[in-house]
Amino acid sequence: MATINTSLERLITNLSKLPTIGRKTALRLAAFLIKENNEFAKELADSIIAIKEKILLCKKCGNYSETELCNICSAENRDSAIICVVEEPFDILNIEKTGQFNGLYHTLSGVISIQKGVMPEDLKIEKLLERIKTENIKEIIIALNPTQEGETTALYLKQKILETAAKNIKITRLATGLPLGSIIEYTDKDTLSGALANRIDY
Amino acid sequence: MATINTSLERLITNLSKLPTIGRKTALRLAAFLIKENNEFAKELADSIIAIKEKILLCKKCGNYSETELCNICSAENRDSAIICVVEEPFDILNIEKTGQFNGLYHTLSGVISIQKGVMPEDLKIEKLLERIKTENIKEIIIALNPTQEGETTALYLKQKILETAAKNIKITRLATGLPLGSIIEYTDKDTLSGALANRIDY
Repeated sequence: MATINTSLERLITNLSKLPTIGRKTALRLAAFLIKENNEFAKELADSIIAIKEKILLCKKCGNYSETELCNICSAENRDSAIICVVEEPFDILNIEKTGQFNGLYHTLSGVISIQKGVMPEDLKIEKLLERIKTENIKEIIIALNPTQEGETTALYLKQKILETAAKNIKITRLATGLPLGSIIEYTDKDTLSGALANRIDY
Repeated sequence: MATINTSLERLITNLSKLPTIGRKTALRLAAFLIKENNEFAKELADSIIAIKEKILLCKKCGNYSETELCNICSAENRDSAIICVVEEPFDILNIEKTGQFNGLYHTLSGVISIQKGVMPEDLKIEKLLERIKTENIKEIIIALNPTQEGETTALYLKQKILETAAKNIKITRLATGLPLGSIIEYTDKDTLSGALANRIDY
């Protein structure tokens, strides 16, 4: 195409590499950036560079952090006897948003997946067991996605924790059931059957 | 939220300002950028800066360009007797992709819209009439969107061109009708009724 300019094509190609962004959306974003003022484009570009320069993974829990220990691990008002185990750092953001949890976190950096070739030793499981041994942990909340892979990983974790830790450690997991606001007619069979099996007194 | 880092929040805020990108997608893009290598983030940031530095609007037709005249206006093998009138520069990209047009373009930079307060004098209509007077134009193809505003603008343009130019200029517009591959059952009433009214011999 004679009309595509080098710098435009370059931007569209780069934007198309981002997840959820197809070529049509990339075109739209490029058109937006061309119309917007220079300050916004510069600010966006700077913030992309800054995130690569500044974001580390917390040495202790694997959360995103700009310092060696993240602001949860270094906070003094958190309950250090409870660890919530998550798959990825962004899960921490979502759990924090609930305002319901005041303990610490541990990021596995994935889940066991035979399909994707992710084995237990690829995850930060040893590090979690190490934390359980050295920190004074009373409860582990397993907050993995309720998928096949999440379930497999949860089961593996439970066994390992029980093998490693003193028997009096409490292991819990997030409740599964109907999402609030959902409509039973449109709820999938597995969710509904789990919600029935785990029904609670009312 | 204690867990949101300054640089992460800054990037998410900036990404959320882009069209079609909500906060959830912005989070996903940020997570992707954190995982990707530094080279990609740098290349993306550079290409955003570059587009603002390099992209101009062609002095003649209003197309995106890195030079004063775009590569269509300055090409020697294009038919300079036909001008295709479009709303925005990105329409030129799409028409070029068809490979069916070898003339020149003229970008109006919008359409007449009473709702949005866009009047004829806000568009590059005078400049088009000027081109018709000074260049040796035989045909004007009106390639505006087949919307209410596009139709209004097309009608206005037609009158202005006929007032200005010699009567022997040919004015055409893109055909409307059923999109290829569409299903009549799902086609809106106006498209279908237009396709009937404009039916062609077979």
